[in-house]
Amino acid sequence: MSAVNLAATQILGNLGSIGYGLAAIGPGVGIGIIFGNGTQALARQPEAAGLIRANQILGFAFCEALALIGLVMPFVYPTS
Amino acid sequence: MSAVNLAATQILGNLGSIGYGLAAIGPGVGIGIIFGNGTQALARQPEAAGLIRANQILGFAFCEALALIGLVMPFVYPTS
Amino acid sequence: MSAVNLAATQILGNLGSIGYGLAAIGPGVGIGIIFGNGTQALARQPEAAGLIRANQILGFAFCEALALIGLVMPFVYPTS
Amino acid sequence: MSAVNLAATQILGNLGSIGYGLAAIGPGVGIGIIFGNGTQALARQPEAAGLIRANQILGFAFCEALALIGLVMPFVYPTS
Amino acid sequence: MSAVNLAATQILGNLGSIGYGLAAIGPGVGIGIIFGNGTQALARQPEAAGLIRANQILGFAFCEALALIGLVMPFVYPTS
Repeated sequence: MSAVNLAATQILGNLGSIGYGLAAIGPGVGIGIIFGNGTQALARQPEAAGLIRANQILGFAFCEALALIGLVMPFVYPTS
Repeated sequence: MSAVNLAATQILGNLGSIGYGLAAIGPGVGIGIIFGNGTQALARQPEAAGLIRANQILGFAFCEALALIGLVMPFVYPTS
Repeated sequence: MSAVNLAATQILGNLGSIGYGLAAIGPGVGIGIIFGNGTQALARQPEAAGLIRANQILGFAFCEALALIGLVMPFVYPTS
Repeated sequence: MSAVNLAATQILGNLGSIGYGLAAIGPGVGIGIIFGNGTQALARQPEAAGLIRANQILGFAFCEALALIGLVMPFVYPTS
Repeated sequence: MSAVNLAATQILGNLGSIGYGLAAIGPGVGIGIIFGNGTQALARQPEAAGLIRANQILGFAFCEALALIGLVMPFVYPTS
């Protein structure tokens, strides 16, 4: 039995694109949870708006950092 | 030791299909969350129906845009 | 530098299996959300059982359709 | 233009490992939802402990079965 | 019909990286659920802070163990 393989595969890209895409899933959901719950909190206690906003920005910064690290790591990991 | 590889792989397709499929996961869940919570909001305050509907459509447009961008990007990214 | 590749890969299958598996994730979670919330709704207003059941079946049909479409599409997409 | 491919790929494994891993995601989350909500239910009505526990075990068995099926199927699917 | 394959694939890495990455998804979400609900619990009953913290640490240890097992398993699984 012989096999003939007529491959015409044309794939172009960098695994870093997939890596950053995966790294952005979690922070995307997480920042949504932070600001969604923050909006509910604003509706419950509008007079605590300053406190709520500061806490949201704190959590946003921690979440966002994870995605930004995923942005730069493909340049850091060795590829050869 | 010698290896004989009798490959009969027949895979046909474009990575753009997978890309759009992945891009549609998030907006699909997100629009569901928007209209699900919107329906609960309608049941809680039926007199705010106009406000609720307008807010839902605003969020829907932002979510939907992410999937539509995923629809057109496979034509934009270079493939050769 | 020379490379010797002693491959003994034995993979057998159809990408349609993966496609249906992915297509069944969303409807599986979605039908669970429908009937889980429906059960809570029954406990809150048992006298609305007929209305709740009809609404559940409506949502179930829409969810299930997505998985069934994923079931038949591997026969529809061209493979050669 | 000529291409030289110096592959030194060393991948060893069975797709069944990935299959069982994927099959364990859903039941793992599902059993967590069952017992998490069951614990909340116990705190709300401690005198219904027997009923709650029986219902939890029923749902646990249905969830667990899905993972166990994923455990044995790699032996069932033909590989040659 | 003849096929010419001009491959210039340059992929470098270990599947253990993907394995640990997948193993860290669940515990990451799980520890977030534990401490998120723990923070809500603290706001509801601040006098139970010791009990809440101890329970959080217990759940954290169980969750974290899953990720740490995923950290060491790539060294354990045979690769040749």
